Amino acid sequence: MCHSLFYLHPRLVNMRPPESFYWSFSLCLGLGLLCVLFVSCWSGVWQGGFAWDGSDLQFNWHPVFMVSGLVVLYGISAVVYRVPSTWGQRKSTWKLVHGGLMLLALLLSVLGLYAVFDFHRAASIPHLYSLHSWVGLCTVGLFAFQWVLGLAGFLLPCSPLWFRSRLKPVHIWLGTMVLILSLTSCISGINEKLIFSLDGSTKESYNSLPLEAKFANFLGILIVVFGMVLLRILSKEEWRRPETDESAYPLLDGHRS
Amino acid sequence: MCHSLFYLHPRLVNMRPPESFYWSFSLCLGLGLLCVLFVSCWSGVWQGGFAWDGSDLQFNWHPVFMVSGLVVLYGISAVVYRVPSTWGQRKSTWKLVHGGLMLLALLLSVLGLYAVFDFHRAASIPHLYSLHSWVGLCTVGLFAFQWVLGLAGFLLPCSPLWFRSRLKPVHIWLGTMVLILSLTSCISGINEKLIFSLDGSTKESYNSLPLEAKFANFLGILIVVFGMVLLRILSKEEWRRPETDESAYPLLDGHRS
Repeated sequence: MCHSLFYLHPRLVNMRPPESFYWSFSLCLGLGLLCVLFVSCWSGVWQGGFAWDGSDLQFNWHPVFMVSGLVVLYGISAVVYRVPSTWGQRKSTWKLVHGGLMLLALLLSVLGLYAVFDFHRAASIPHLYSLHSWVGLCTVGLFAFQWVLGLAGFLLPCSPLWFRSRLKPVHIWLGTMVLILSLTSCISGINEKLIFSLDGSTKESYNSLPLEAKFANFLGILIVVFGMVLLRILSKEEWRRPETDESAYPLLDGHRS
Repeated sequence: MCHSLFYLHPRLVNMRPPESFYWSFSLCLGLGLLCVLFVSCWSGVWQGGFAWDGSDLQFNWHPVFMVSGLVVLYGISAVVYRVPSTWGQRKSTWKLVHGGLMLLALLLSVLGLYAVFDFHRAASIPHLYSLHSWVGLCTVGLFAFQWVLGLAGFLLPCSPLWFRSRLKPVHIWLGTMVLILSLTSCISGINEKLIFSLDGSTKESYNSLPLEAKFANFLGILIVVFGMVLLRILSKEEWRRPETDESAYPLLDGHRS
């Protein structure tokens, strides 16, 4: 193993972790956990629980997988580089963590899509007619494209440096767009599901604002606040991981002399 | 008038306007215009036109004002500083243009809210029950707060420099949040309106995807693309207006010696 692995950027030496980052990051984690709890509780309690049989109960996995994967896990994966205690460690390790968590988020999102397509098929409901479904599908498609592009540009050792340096700002911008689109998809999806399920026949109507409506609306607000805190973290220049020599050749360190 | 008004930052001397900016800006203007045309056409033709009498026709102003004010005018106002041909001119003039256009966008948004509240009152529909309305109201509230904060921090001559410099990153972040929330509100709102109006009784149902649904869904996609192009412009460091001496005292130039 070469010595470049232990190269330390001047900002890493005697570095004092910014406390404000850890406050924001903890807030982000707490809000993310609350989002997962709230969406699981909404689907599991108010919407009747879970199954994988083409029924309404299969649909209930859709919001859980989308909020947990496309919003919360995606968001947390996007900021793992910012944790100052990781700056002294190999960037390549954290690239793999970032890419691995993103892959898990993508798989959860695809599973969430599968749940709703399967439910539609069983109930003979047409696919992809609502604006929510159009935006949601674009979001997952863009996420998949972004993941493949990230793999090709930043993890494959054969990717040329010029491509990597050109890709970086596009990767950051596209990543932010996926996050924004995922927030938009979730808000429009929760709104749509509440209109359909609180129709005044089997349950109180949405416009009388029963407890379920308040609870699910509050879930929507939690998702928005989670996204805002996350975007604040991503927007702070001073919380960016400093560039090191290693970052130019993330997976090639073992080959450099 | 003092000479500092004619101070030119080194980047402004012999500056060659970046063509790629003008391409992106023109695309942004074109998409914005298309959004306004599409929403006007949807409300004016498919939804039956406009009135101010508490009927459905009064509601039709709501999407038009929100898309035109809260998304398009807001977005264009956010990037006026980036136009390179304005960099040689007084920043204070462009601050007033930015603030003035934002005020117009805010007034259109408030008028859009008034239209829907008035329609609800006349039709005895409860206010503020849907997640769309919660997010939408938060968006306009945050926009109003942001405008007042911007006025106090950047336009009032008495605002201290330390406040101004601390406020700037928060102003940029909050401004981006308002844009993201406005996209979210519009997408969830168009989706909600289509579910309510294409209910299969007087018109074809939404899930059979009639021409109106395709048209309004496409409007939603146009809004998303407009937002993406706008956020790309805002994310580019090299397209930021360079800081000049003047920018520290935007409305005080006449008093400086």
